[in-house]
Amino acid sequence: MRGRLITFEGIDGCGKTLQLGLLADFLERCNIDCIRTREPGGTALGRQIRSSILDCEPGTVEPLAELLLYAADRAQHVREIVRPALAAGRVVLSDRFYDATTAYQGYGRGFDLALVERLNLLATEGLRPDLTLLFDLDVDAALARIASRGDTLHSASAPDRLDREPHEFHARVRGGYLEIAAREPHRFRIIPASGAPDEIHKAVTAAVAPLMEKEESAEC
Amino acid sequence: MRGRLITFEGIDGCGKTLQLGLLADFLERCNIDCIRTREPGGTALGRQIRSSILDCEPGTVEPLAELLLYAADRAQHVREIVRPALAAGRVVLSDRFYDATTAYQGYGRGFDLALVERLNLLATEGLRPDLTLLFDLDVDAALARIASRGDTLHSASAPDRLDREPHEFHARVRGGYLEIAAREPHRFRIIPASGAPDEIHKAVTAAVAPLMEKEESAEC
Repeated sequence: MRGRLITFEGIDGCGKTLQLGLLADFLERCNIDCIRTREPGGTALGRQIRSSILDCEPGTVEPLAELLLYAADRAQHVREIVRPALAAGRVVLSDRFYDATTAYQGYGRGFDLALVERLNLLATEGLRPDLTLLFDLDVDAALARIASRGDTLHSASAPDRLDREPHEFHARVRGGYLEIAAREPHRFRIIPASGAPDEIHKAVTAAVAPLMEKEESAEC
Repeated sequence: MRGRLITFEGIDGCGKTLQLGLLADFLERCNIDCIRTREPGGTALGRQIRSSILDCEPGTVEPLAELLLYAADRAQHVREIVRPALAAGRVVLSDRFYDATTAYQGYGRGFDLALVERLNLLATEGLRPDLTLLFDLDVDAALARIASRGDTLHSASAPDRLDREPHEFHARVRGGYLEIAAREPHRFRIIPASGAPDEIHKAVTAAVAPLMEKEESAEC
């Protein structure tokens, strides 16, 4: 089969990373060759960039510098990881892609959407996901999940910088994601993300099934 | 006096960093308030970016990622260091600024000059140097200087990644700098950089003198 790019989007705490892992396990059980990757931090350079952005104190990274760092991470990721995997016929599962920049830097931080989209286009050279799963969750529920993570998912006890943004910021990001999805209904599937992980996983596999060449391969 | 931005440009090994230090010492002896800064790496974020770009193996950083990282470094540098210093009336001496990106990424790596200039404009928000000193030196002489630095200027024995680029790359960069300077003769002063440091320093102070409000202040 030809390669497919499936991206996982949503506000922090929406559960997309867990669902990406469950889908990857499922595809592997079906003998579908897939890779798990993410932005920022899908490459060695990207991990340095991710650390520069997320580990510093709030207010020290200028928003424009942050926007450009995400674009740099994406440029490296697309060329080093995503395009070669797609060319090899693999299914690429990416925890965030350019929609995250539109949602966080555009809707969240208020950058001109046209500027954000020009940088997205520059970094991706026009590569678009075959399918984008938007895990939609109430901001209060998402923040409660982040608070309950504790040390089990984070190596440091403090949540990272983005997780410390105020409630209104996450609300703007959530609204932004829904607007982006509404503009491209054929690419997006909105997955309600308040239920149990196994229920959400069923919705994910149902959304992914039509994308696989032999539909039965997603029902193994 | 109002703030002034003076940028130091030229190929690696041209001696601009040494001359920046000599000018800073001179201005300080004249009681002119100045700061020494550089790109990349003029801020804490920038030092992380600089390390990401320069310390890795050749060929691992995608040229587009590198271009965007330099823009991110510049966005942070302009907002955190340069604009506040200019607003406080200080003289800012910067070891490289956006002309370096035009010369290295545009002329050197072959990126579309219009794209490079759009990113420069985005990162600087239109801030232009009051004076740019271009230290012009034959590529062979510059490479010989780099080779002779040994451990005295570099903490590691190996020259950094850019210094390992082939001769033709540095020749394109040098030619690019000269073209940029030719387009903006009022902003640029070309300083022949093959002579002794104290002779070059005299040419630097002569070039800088007209920029100081009281000309005699640069003749102290």
